[in-house]
Amino acid sequence: MRSTDKFEIISEMAKRRGYFWPSFEIYGGVSGFVTLGPLGSTLKRKIEGRLRDFFIRRLGLFEIETSVIMPGKVFEASGHVEAFQEPMVECKACKRKFRADHLLVEFAGMSETDTEKLSLQELMSEINKREIHCPECDGNFGEPKRFLTMFKTTIGPYSESIGYGRPEAAQGIFVEYKRIYEYTREKLPFGVAIIGHALRNEISPRQGPIRLREFTIMDLEFFFDPEKPQCIMLREVENETLRLLPAERVLKDVDETIEVTVKEALSKGLIRTEWQAFFMALSKRFLAELGVPEEKQRFIEKLDWERAHYSVQGYDQQVYLERWGWVEVSGHNYRTDYDLRCHMEFSGVDMTAFKKHKKPIIKEEISIKPLTSKIGPAFKEDTSRVVKLLSTLDPSELEASFKKQGFHIIKSFKILPEHVEITHKTVKEKGKRFIPHVVEPSFGSDRLFYVTLEYAYKRKEGRTLLSLPRDLAPVGASVFPLVSKDGLPEKARQVYRLLIDSGFTVEYDESGSIGRRYARADEVGTPLGVTVDYQTLKDDTVTVRDRDTWRQVRNKIDELPELLNAYFRLKIEFKELGQPVES
Amino acid sequence: MRSTDKFEIISEMAKRRGYFWPSFEIYGGVSGFVTLGPLGSTLKRKIEGRLRDFFIRRLGLFEIETSVIMPGKVFEASGHVEAFQEPMVECKACKRKFRADHLLVEFAGMSETDTEKLSLQELMSEINKREIHCPECDGNFGEPKRFLTMFKTTIGPYSESIGYGRPEAAQGIFVEYKRIYEYTREKLPFGVAIIGHALRNEISPRQGPIRLREFTIMDLEFFFDPEKPQCIMLREVENETLRLLPAERVLKDVDETIEVTVKEALSKGLIRTEWQAFFMALSKRFLAELGVPEEKQRFIEKLDWERAHYSVQGYDQQVYLERWGWVEVSGHNYRTDYDLRCHMEFSGVDMTAFKKHKKPIIKEEISIKPLTSKIGPAFKEDTSRVVKLLSTLDPSELEASFKKQGFHIIKSFKILPEHVEITHKTVKEKGKRFIPHVVEPSFGSDRLFYVTLEYAYKRKEGRTLLSLPRDLAPVGASVFPLVSKDGLPEKARQVYRLLIDSGFTVEYDESGSIGRRYARADEVGTPLGVTVDYQTLKDDTVTVRDRDTWRQVRNKIDELPELLNAYFRLKIEFKELGQPVES
Repeated sequence: MRSTDKFEIISEMAKRRGYFWPSFEIYGGVSGFVTLGPLGSTLKRKIEGRLRDFFIRRLGLFEIETSVIMPGKVFEASGHVEAFQEPMVECKACKRKFRADHLLVEFAGMSETDTEKLSLQELMSEINKREIHCPECDGNFGEPKRFLTMFKTTIGPYSESIGYGRPEAAQGIFVEYKRIYEYTREKLPFGVAIIGHALRNEISPRQGPIRLREFTIMDLEFFFDPEKPQCIMLREVENETLRLLPAERVLKDVDETIEVTVKEALSKGLIRTEWQAFFMALSKRFLAELGVPEEKQRFIEKLDWERAHYSVQGYDQQVYLERWGWVEVSGHNYRTDYDLRCHMEFSGVDMTAFKKHKKPIIKEEISIKPLTSKIGPAFKEDTSRVVKLLSTLDPSELEASFKKQGFHIIKSFKILPEHVEITHKTVKEKGKRFIPHVVEPSFGSDRLFYVTLEYAYKRKEGRTLLSLPRDLAPVGASVFPLVSKDGLPEKARQVYRLLIDSGFTVEYDESGSIGRRYARADEVGTPLGVTVDYQTLKDDTVTVRDRDTWRQVRNKIDELPELLNAYFRLKIEFKELGQPVES
Repeated sequence: MRSTDKFEIISEMAKRRGYFWPSFEIYGGVSGFVTLGPLGSTLKRKIEGRLRDFFIRRLGLFEIETSVIMPGKVFEASGHVEAFQEPMVECKACKRKFRADHLLVEFAGMSETDTEKLSLQELMSEINKREIHCPECDGNFGEPKRFLTMFKTTIGPYSESIGYGRPEAAQGIFVEYKRIYEYTREKLPFGVAIIGHALRNEISPRQGPIRLREFTIMDLEFFFDPEKPQCIMLREVENETLRLLPAERVLKDVDETIEVTVKEALSKGLIRTEWQAFFMALSKRFLAELGVPEEKQRFIEKLDWERAHYSVQGYDQQVYLERWGWVEVSGHNYRTDYDLRCHMEFSGVDMTAFKKHKKPIIKEEISIKPLTSKIGPAFKEDTSRVVKLLSTLDPSELEASFKKQGFHIIKSFKILPEHVEITHKTVKEKGKRFIPHVVEPSFGSDRLFYVTLEYAYKRKEGRTLLSLPRDLAPVGASVFPLVSKDGLPEKARQVYRLLIDSGFTVEYDESGSIGRRYARADEVGTPLGVTVDYQTLKDDTVTVRDRDTWRQVRNKIDELPELLNAYFRLKIEFKELGQPVES
């Protein structure tokens, strides 16, 4: 019987057709790792290429590459060592370990929103109250503990040189911020992205490409002056509608989104910064380009206790998937100056930006000079303490105090005007230093990959079509000889070679009936089928078949390279590839 | 004073211009990690894209993606846990650790070929004999130990689930071989590649992008039937000359290469398999495309004790670099059936291929049935032993023996024809099972990246040019307003937007004199400079400047998109971009 679970159908197809499958099967498998086969790795890379094009090249942002393994200090500074932990319980009988909060969701029907705010002790009492036992052996659980979900290792031969696999790529950008800022010639705003592997040592992941221990992330950190938070490109998206589920609705358990334009979301204060709204709008468009319609997308605001430790406002972009319901595909966080500040404090390296005032600000600077010749005799053994205390004083406060009452009390000491010399100086302040703020859109490319597959999956007349956007399809065209005799294979190989030499990704297939070969190409999502038939031998024309409509056109072989180039660059449509063929 | 060390010059330029720099500088740096800045990450990705195009798409091979963290079993099976170790000594005084063999190379002038064959004990005695002390504190060294140079971690919450960072991507292919073989519809030969990060926990790396703890590798595993080792594409490269330094020369310390064609190298037995020779020839062409001339490339054969544990013949492709001399950029190993056999034995999963005979082979099968009713009385208490011994016999040997002398002696037992029943049966053998053999070309893309930079580095009239191949340059064109007034910046921004919308990677720059902007673009390797001047405002033409010759042409803005498209696809040359401008 055919399964009706979409994830199962797609996983089965994916395994058979080289899209993806669980890794290390010959060793019994290790959950949380997935292998992308020949078609899958190409599709995922093309999706990443499009992310790059859409968010980096077009916007004039930068991409850098940093390592997956990073020294412990980075994640101590960033707060991950402290915060990147999950509650875990061990079964006392079989010693198996589980995510404590996931048990409550799975076996007691609690919501993630509810479990995420529970302390270890509260988790324990909920588990006891709801009589949850080990799903494997029905044993009782021990006390929950916090488990660090970063992969830990040592760098070099010294056991004290701790390193971690990065759980997000973002830290690679913050740690290298100083050099990048120099590269931009110290001009804000600018954005920097990393697309690369990241690692999270999940306790017991079980959702294929949706929850992986190793995955690919695109973290984009957009740096701006918090006193100039205006998004210069907002006009391009301000009328885009977003489906939002703001925190107040989540808190009331309302599941219905509101539809607002970007402009409204900002004016109503639903999204706090323009740049974040801008990236949210682009992300919506991006998912639409991958084939996810508007009504299958939404943005849900993270509640206080759900947000990552670095975020003051966060929205998850979610896509509706048949098995799991709403699943996060990107996160949008306003990280403020949290990360740069942490690294500044931890490393002692200045990472502030400097901004010039339009014209220098003329300021009066007041300073206090303690007169020890007067303080000494007055305060004796407390002299040095008094001098120290004076250095912590706001000079204008002291001056005001003298003016008002003729003296100033600091701790128990009474300071008189004669004890100090107050000088006024006029200074020119040319500008000021500040720490840039950051908004971050962050995509999981394995999830985008799976989402694209699920939304491309179609059935037509009892057959499977993978209706991938043509420029994302792993193989652009298949070349088929109609039959494998009479010189057709030789001719078809020439066509194959021509298309390869013209830069296309092409497959050659001569095994089985032409109908079966068309069906196979449709199932793996190849947009075009180029067939060499008997007429080809006479006039050097071939038929070109469209995966989605099964329509065919005929054209000269010579014309194909330029036409296909235009077709895959989305410049022309299928029907422009040749003369229609009556079927 | 200007440094004359090429590596230093390039590193300085790279740091300033956003190509690469040492990672984690704000935390004092961690050796063996390099950050690729905005230009560097793009250049490296373009080199990887070309590798992909050259070795995968054009040859019709496959690419897959697997994880960097892999379970311990994989590397126990592959032999890496046993073999991937390096000799290390610790200074007794300051406790610093060093590669024992590197100390002998650096401070006693020994060659790597010599140090690589030394045992731990021999290393110790060489270090003592040559009176090598700690380079940091002059202390004495303790006994050398072997240090596992894989990064170790645990997967999931169980401490016994060891995982390693992959030191090569190849194992990802071998472990997933079964699925890929199914994907190819079980047809040999085929090739599978992975391009991704790999990790080697070097003891004390100090050579920037040349020796990294985290780097990007392309491992390509080409599987073929060892009984059909012919390379079907050999004709394309058979007359390509290779500069080889075969083992016999290396052994005699001869440093002069021999020049042979691919055909000769095979017929003389210098390269053992056609597929390996094929990939070596392509690799030579590939490096030439990156800008490394023939005479700066060579292939050196690895000696028995230098080869990786899985290899029966290995050549390193080397490129001459000014600071380090000959440096490996790719390795070419004949891995035979070593890896698949290891994983078959370790996992118990059959990974053999099956090949049909053209027509079934009719074979006579002889079998021996011991007749216990006769053996029992004859051998008494030795009966079961005799039965066992008979089962190990080659039946045809027994039959021949009977024919010749009427009996057969096995151990001390005299077997007579009456003790056994010999039957002859005719069987049809339809085909046979075998383990495919593998040749592997393996590239380090960070080294290709550095090599490309060093060979692109030119000086012209006292200025720096980075003469990168135009399709590899990170930025295709810079758009400049001649001056930043009179409406030129606005016009230039329109040109910039047009080129961005046409899919090019373009920069806009209006700061500083036009001469300085040209110089900056030349230094970062941007092939074209598009300048908007006063004439542009009259007739919508711009000048286009060539980075290498500094020549300029003029053309209509509208014409640029199509012309640049052709130019970057290497279809037309610079002079075809417009009418020459007199300078």
